[in-house]
Amino acid sequence: MYSFKNDYSEGAHPLILESLLKTNLQQEPGYCLDQYSNHARELIKNTLECDSCDVHLIVGGTQTNLIAISSFLRPHEACIAAYTGHIAVHEAGAIEATGHKVITVNVANGKLDCSDIQAVVDGHPDEHMVKPKLVYISNPTELGTHYTKSELVKLKEYCSNNNLLLYIDGARLGSALVASDLEFKDLVHLADAIFIGATKNGALIGEALVICNDYLKKDLRYQIKQKGALLSKGRLLGQQFEVLFQNNLYLDLAMHAKKMADKLRYGLKKQGIKLLVETETNQLFPIFSKEDIRNLEFNFLFYVWKEIDENYSAIRLITSWATTEEAVDSFLETTKILEKS
Amino acid sequence: MYSFKNDYSEGAHPLILESLLKTNLQQEPGYCLDQYSNHARELIKNTLECDSCDVHLIVGGTQTNLIAISSFLRPHEACIAAYTGHIAVHEAGAIEATGHKVITVNVANGKLDCSDIQAVVDGHPDEHMVKPKLVYISNPTELGTHYTKSELVKLKEYCSNNNLLLYIDGARLGSALVASDLEFKDLVHLADAIFIGATKNGALIGEALVICNDYLKKDLRYQIKQKGALLSKGRLLGQQFEVLFQNNLYLDLAMHAKKMADKLRYGLKKQGIKLLVETETNQLFPIFSKEDIRNLEFNFLFYVWKEIDENYSAIRLITSWATTEEAVDSFLETTKILEKS
Amino acid sequence: MYSFKNDYSEGAHPLILESLLKTNLQQEPGYCLDQYSNHARELIKNTLECDSCDVHLIVGGTQTNLIAISSFLRPHEACIAAYTGHIAVHEAGAIEATGHKVITVNVANGKLDCSDIQAVVDGHPDEHMVKPKLVYISNPTELGTHYTKSELVKLKEYCSNNNLLLYIDGARLGSALVASDLEFKDLVHLADAIFIGATKNGALIGEALVICNDYLKKDLRYQIKQKGALLSKGRLLGQQFEVLFQNNLYLDLAMHAKKMADKLRYGLKKQGIKLLVETETNQLFPIFSKEDIRNLEFNFLFYVWKEIDENYSAIRLITSWATTEEAVDSFLETTKILEKS
Amino acid sequence: MYSFKNDYSEGAHPLILESLLKTNLQQEPGYCLDQYSNHARELIKNTLECDSCDVHLIVGGTQTNLIAISSFLRPHEACIAAYTGHIAVHEAGAIEATGHKVITVNVANGKLDCSDIQAVVDGHPDEHMVKPKLVYISNPTELGTHYTKSELVKLKEYCSNNNLLLYIDGARLGSALVASDLEFKDLVHLADAIFIGATKNGALIGEALVICNDYLKKDLRYQIKQKGALLSKGRLLGQQFEVLFQNNLYLDLAMHAKKMADKLRYGLKKQGIKLLVETETNQLFPIFSKEDIRNLEFNFLFYVWKEIDENYSAIRLITSWATTEEAVDSFLETTKILEKS
Repeated sequence: MYSFKNDYSEGAHPLILESLLKTNLQQEPGYCLDQYSNHARELIKNTLECDSCDVHLIVGGTQTNLIAISSFLRPHEACIAAYTGHIAVHEAGAIEATGHKVITVNVANGKLDCSDIQAVVDGHPDEHMVKPKLVYISNPTELGTHYTKSELVKLKEYCSNNNLLLYIDGARLGSALVASDLEFKDLVHLADAIFIGATKNGALIGEALVICNDYLKKDLRYQIKQKGALLSKGRLLGQQFEVLFQNNLYLDLAMHAKKMADKLRYGLKKQGIKLLVETETNQLFPIFSKEDIRNLEFNFLFYVWKEIDENYSAIRLITSWATTEEAVDSFLETTKILEKS
Repeated sequence: MYSFKNDYSEGAHPLILESLLKTNLQQEPGYCLDQYSNHARELIKNTLECDSCDVHLIVGGTQTNLIAISSFLRPHEACIAAYTGHIAVHEAGAIEATGHKVITVNVANGKLDCSDIQAVVDGHPDEHMVKPKLVYISNPTELGTHYTKSELVKLKEYCSNNNLLLYIDGARLGSALVASDLEFKDLVHLADAIFIGATKNGALIGEALVICNDYLKKDLRYQIKQKGALLSKGRLLGQQFEVLFQNNLYLDLAMHAKKMADKLRYGLKKQGIKLLVETETNQLFPIFSKEDIRNLEFNFLFYVWKEIDENYSAIRLITSWATTEEAVDSFLETTKILEKS
Repeated sequence: MYSFKNDYSEGAHPLILESLLKTNLQQEPGYCLDQYSNHARELIKNTLECDSCDVHLIVGGTQTNLIAISSFLRPHEACIAAYTGHIAVHEAGAIEATGHKVITVNVANGKLDCSDIQAVVDGHPDEHMVKPKLVYISNPTELGTHYTKSELVKLKEYCSNNNLLLYIDGARLGSALVASDLEFKDLVHLADAIFIGATKNGALIGEALVICNDYLKKDLRYQIKQKGALLSKGRLLGQQFEVLFQNNLYLDLAMHAKKMADKLRYGLKKQGIKLLVETETNQLFPIFSKEDIRNLEFNFLFYVWKEIDENYSAIRLITSWATTEEAVDSFLETTKILEKS
Repeated sequence: MYSFKNDYSEGAHPLILESLLKTNLQQEPGYCLDQYSNHARELIKNTLECDSCDVHLIVGGTQTNLIAISSFLRPHEACIAAYTGHIAVHEAGAIEATGHKVITVNVANGKLDCSDIQAVVDGHPDEHMVKPKLVYISNPTELGTHYTKSELVKLKEYCSNNNLLLYIDGARLGSALVASDLEFKDLVHLADAIFIGATKNGALIGEALVICNDYLKKDLRYQIKQKGALLSKGRLLGQQFEVLFQNNLYLDLAMHAKKMADKLRYGLKKQGIKLLVETETNQLFPIFSKEDIRNLEFNFLFYVWKEIDENYSAIRLITSWATTEEAVDSFLETTKILEKS
């Protein structure tokens, strides 16, 4: 039974475990003030080609979102997000629990554009309503689509001109980078804050929150502590990011996931399978008959994403740094047989 | 310049001021423990024909909503509301500020039905999302529509069967009661909690929160205090509700507002003016050409509610206990002239 | 049975009711944007001799405190208060409910000095703890003591030098002003924000929040709305402050309360009664034998404040704008008889 | 330079890393629904000899405290804690950030007894104040003291009789267990909820929240998710607890730490060094002259805990599962030389 359910089914990349083993009995200060965390932050800044940004190592994505957003906003300020955005649906009200409304926009492909945001701003003119202040996007989105560099440039320019913050949830950032013309060094110019996800790209845990906007930097460690996210053994985060941001490993792992997804994508298309949405990242949403889905479920794990009609549904397949070419071949083999029968 | 902007443009019904004057120097305990508040609570319970419910006198509607909802829900539980619902839009994120998500439903006429709620429940199956727990409706709605008794019976039955609370925002409850077959005595059987609005029906300030569900009653006064709503001179609330719930005054005032609205409604219809939405309460939304609106604005105050097309918009007219027949006649006179010209 | 329990036992000063009556049917905009609120804000600014401060009219004291403090602080920032401070004890956790810790200091007389604050700052050096940011004082304090002008000058200077905000709860501000060398015009230089209490000085409801520090002014009305405190009939607040801030009424009423308190104070001292704490405001805490207290309770209402020993307790007496000289004489008469017997 | 600063200076016990390595490429479901987490929960329940309790695996201690407490309390309910309690000082206002007040009690040795709690309850009689509801104790305390079984029995009985919840922060629970007559199987009878700390006893991360009181169990996973603590690779927690709760490893590691602390304790006492407070756990607070402290700092890392007088201070030494006997000997050797000189 092979799982294409998500990109966090396995443990960590072997180099990470190796590093943990090697340094295990070294005594270190706590709370991400250890030598590995220091080095990791340096490596990340070098990769971003930015010396002035602040980098914080945090355990998980929901946690990072709620820490950053509640730190950046005053009580009456709200987020704008696609209705499929992670903070809007899949965080059990984490943002609202810190006091802030998430205003959602209905968009087909998971992506916001300037006109979507403008409509929200226009609809919130006075103090009887919340004040939209932070634009939340995920890149890639929860539907596997991604933003091009020029799309991000437009969004950032719009936000800057309208006194809005642009925040990028990069839980799968690697996947967006290898699928587009966007580069690490562009990021700090295109967002007020962003997090670089590692859990879904080879780490056991870990997201690196990068704060680019000077006004948002102050006292972030207080927020991290208050939300229960300042790890006493912060070295665990430091060591992982240290490994991932050396020798291009972060992007190499993302590229492997993309290659596996591409192979699936092209293989399925060649078999005449349609996709719910066009993606170039490690997520794909092929449409199968419900009978085929039942048959696929004998050998593979995946989410049934959305019913298309009485007979068809889209499923979600995700590849990762750990996906084997054998598993991909086996899946394509199976669908080929199903299609023929 | 006569204002049809809302039902809180004037002060209070004269009998209320008379009562304030008469009792002004009587010394009373604070915090709604005075004789007038005690009497007012008794009168309200008698009107509701319910001895077991709890009644709390609170200053305003947003305040009442946030106190009640934050008291009733655990951190992960959320409200369901029409996207036009007051808590969803016009409370500056008051509910979210207490930690709870408001899940909105797109409905045309401001009213929720069971299938709307079922769809939300279906879309929130597990702990990665909030848990829908409280259904918020306003009666009448923000669009002037109202629920019939049988509609409320269905909603309440659905909620009970699905472990959901039904909460009614009755900021303009009088207006719903005089427009429908719903009676005061029905309310405690049709909601877990409800508030009876007085600010918009002749009082200076004041909403009476009625808690019908025994499980929700405990320690409500703590919540009122914590949210800054336990008035030291609570007598001010008690005296007003005492006056309104004697001699049928509350419903008489609501009926006056409805009569004035009906006169406007029928007068405008007779002139061929169309309405954005059919209402029987004290709110109406006639559609005029933008030129006519500009002309009306020389003599009347009102909100332009919604653009219909390039040439037409709907405006909102609200009548109240204080609306004069002269003002209504004058408005109809003006529109008649405009239509002819 | 005459009550010395508090200064909010009666309704409002007659001039306030007169104003309500006179303007009752005048149509006005809502939300404190009416002509009376506008005028009241002007009058308050003139009294403060400050054109640049912002004035907001709010219903109650706990409400004002929670709105101001939650607006001024970021999530990790905390208040410092005397352990007897209203926000520390008597607000049912209102400040904590907005997310902020109240750090308390044990002080004998209800007053903070710079060394108290310094000790708190010293004890909170890093991000494992909250960051003390706002110093809350009440003037007069909950024990009836008050700050002199020079004490406030020192506190403000200390706060400014230490990047702390100074916030003054003036629920009984009038009482502090008539008891000290402090004047209205000093206030805006001695605090970052302050509220001028009216509920306890002749109004039905109402506190005027004055924001002196430019950095704290932005978007205050959003906070007021979000916390349920933006009154639809804001005129009720405007009219009351309009009356109180004309013809010196606010200070005249406070002076009357002080005179009645002074008469009680000196009368009791002359009878040999001791006071728990020396005060010059409208609160006094005479110490009686428990038997005398039982006897006084036949004719007077008051709080038994604190047990002194097996036989003696201190009681709290409060006078107000409405306290009659007859009541004071009658109380002194009664204690004289008790002491003799 | 050897560090006695804390018990989280090193990585994890080798058996834990071995388990991570061995299972690394096994695909598992996320969110602590994997086979290792399931097994770990079973092992913990077996150890507690309790089948009915709920066990949740969470990353850190502050996180566990804030999740549990905010889940258990209604908005107006508060915690009672020693003023040295972790939630009172060292969590950057984490509990207040969820809306709840922490009422602190001044106690000398970090421990609460029933009379401390009773005094708080007596001081909070009505809705103008918060309602004390949850008693927070840490065992061992932040001062290294611990509760005996009979002390806990008394506390629990008192709490049950007074409608209070008893919550035990067991960040260093192992250390309390090996220092007292308290056993794992006693715990579920002596607390409404408790967490078993692993970060400070050999794990990389991880605390196991055990909920014993049926009324507190519902929907805990929603709270965990909402506070950003539902790990996608929950297997990381499961594997660690699986290792620690097999073959008595958890207690063995705690016992090693205690033995090292005992050796230090007795060694120092023999040298005539006094201790700030008598402890039997892995924390000790010897008092040295400031000059000795400066000399010790050439070879050892530790916290200077508290100034005793002009010349003396207490320092904090903590031993752990990883403390070597060589380090202990070396420390004792050094102090012996210092004392002689």
